[in-house]
Amino acid sequence: MGYREFTIEGRNAVMEAFRSGKCIDKLFVLDGCQDGPVLSIKREAKKQDTLIRYVDKERLDQLSETGKHQGVIAYAAAYEYAEVEDIMALAKERGEEPFIWLLDNIEDPHNLGAMIRTAHQAGAHGVIIPKNRAVGLTATVARTSAGALNYLPVAKVTNLVKTIEELKKDGLWFVCADMDGTVMYDLNLTGPIGLVIGSEGEGVGRLVKEKCDFVASIPMHGQIDSLNASVAAGVLGYEIVRQRMCAKK
Amino acid sequence: MGYREFTIEGRNAVMEAFRSGKCIDKLFVLDGCQDGPVLSIKREAKKQDTLIRYVDKERLDQLSETGKHQGVIAYAAAYEYAEVEDIMALAKERGEEPFIWLLDNIEDPHNLGAMIRTAHQAGAHGVIIPKNRAVGLTATVARTSAGALNYLPVAKVTNLVKTIEELKKDGLWFVCADMDGTVMYDLNLTGPIGLVIGSEGEGVGRLVKEKCDFVASIPMHGQIDSLNASVAAGVLGYEIVRQRMCAKK
Repeated sequence: MGYREFTIEGRNAVMEAFRSGKCIDKLFVLDGCQDGPVLSIKREAKKQDTLIRYVDKERLDQLSETGKHQGVIAYAAAYEYAEVEDIMALAKERGEEPFIWLLDNIEDPHNLGAMIRTAHQAGAHGVIIPKNRAVGLTATVARTSAGALNYLPVAKVTNLVKTIEELKKDGLWFVCADMDGTVMYDLNLTGPIGLVIGSEGEGVGRLVKEKCDFVASIPMHGQIDSLNASVAAGVLGYEIVRQRMCAKK
Repeated sequence: MGYREFTIEGRNAVMEAFRSGKCIDKLFVLDGCQDGPVLSIKREAKKQDTLIRYVDKERLDQLSETGKHQGVIAYAAAYEYAEVEDIMALAKERGEEPFIWLLDNIEDPHNLGAMIRTAHQAGAHGVIIPKNRAVGLTATVARTSAGALNYLPVAKVTNLVKTIEELKKDGLWFVCADMDGTVMYDLNLTGPIGLVIGSEGEGVGRLVKEKCDFVASIPMHGQIDSLNASVAAGVLGYEIVRQRMCAKK
């Protein structure tokens, strides 16, 4: 587990890194350089919302580790995922009942980052995300998590439903957020718990929802549909925090 | 009060609208048009994160109300601010104790929009923002509020401290969020209340904080500093919702 940065240098290597979807944080480009390959790299960088810094040759030479930067150096990041077992082990190590967030198919990297940040601050032991159909841990997610990604274990699983079934054997209860649920203040959300949060558009997937022991709703007094997904995760997540703190007293 | 859309047509009018900081939602540009003034308008639009749609002449003619669009039509929005009295009147009309959110110097329009959305869903009667040093109700704020701006009165005041003093005469208590406060679960947050939220970077201003009756903190179990500002507003705002609902029972 952990978030680690490294450099990629040279036109082909940098372009390849963008194309393969590597998590690139920052791109240093030789100021004034206008030729084709560099323009293509800049286009890719803009598409992926990567920070571009224009610097002079001297600065690039300083940054370079290989001495063969050809006018472009990318700062990339790699995240080493945790295993679900690591998350459970962390709870045990802290002598706490497991508190895990399962983020089902969150597509907006800003929301995913904010949720990881909130999960960490709420005292969760880890986050589980599905391998497919969701955004991975990109540079935007890392930035929006405000550093939480360095502390909180995140595991990627092939099948969220199967993971829930396995964690149930370890004694976890599962609660998901949905409009048609019981008002969250009326549920007992103490004990070893998995909080399932769905995407802003689609909510929690049907199969995942069926596996949940509770469906919790956040009281809505307004005339629109819902809250922003990361705000909703925070509100429900902190209701669990409150109940856990009260149960301890 | 209310959010209203209208069109601005022609190169000078559209450019002037951008320069004067009008809230422009969408820009329609004649496809393929590359001359100077149109390029300048597109640059302004990109700076302000305005949606640009490229359309053919026929479509522009359809959209035009004046028939003199010169290749550009902007959809702008105007928000008619409420007065603080309107917010108090809404609480009275609903037979509820006033619940008002004061957003002190929020600079990120996404956060401001998300907070307005949450305030509305939490059943607040209105939002108060300061006139200076903060973002206004731009198109981004309107979009991020997910429609809440159409329902929730928002008042703009010159001096937040003075407004707090006046509302105190009407019996309101004020609570602000800050790290050094009392854990929010240990505070009595029922009754007529004003919730003060500060910006992500600076928090609540010193003079405003001194006027608050309570300083509430959200329990933080992680190794980083804080939550995203709109998540924090949601978590504290919904603790007030919980206490109000419990007090009614």
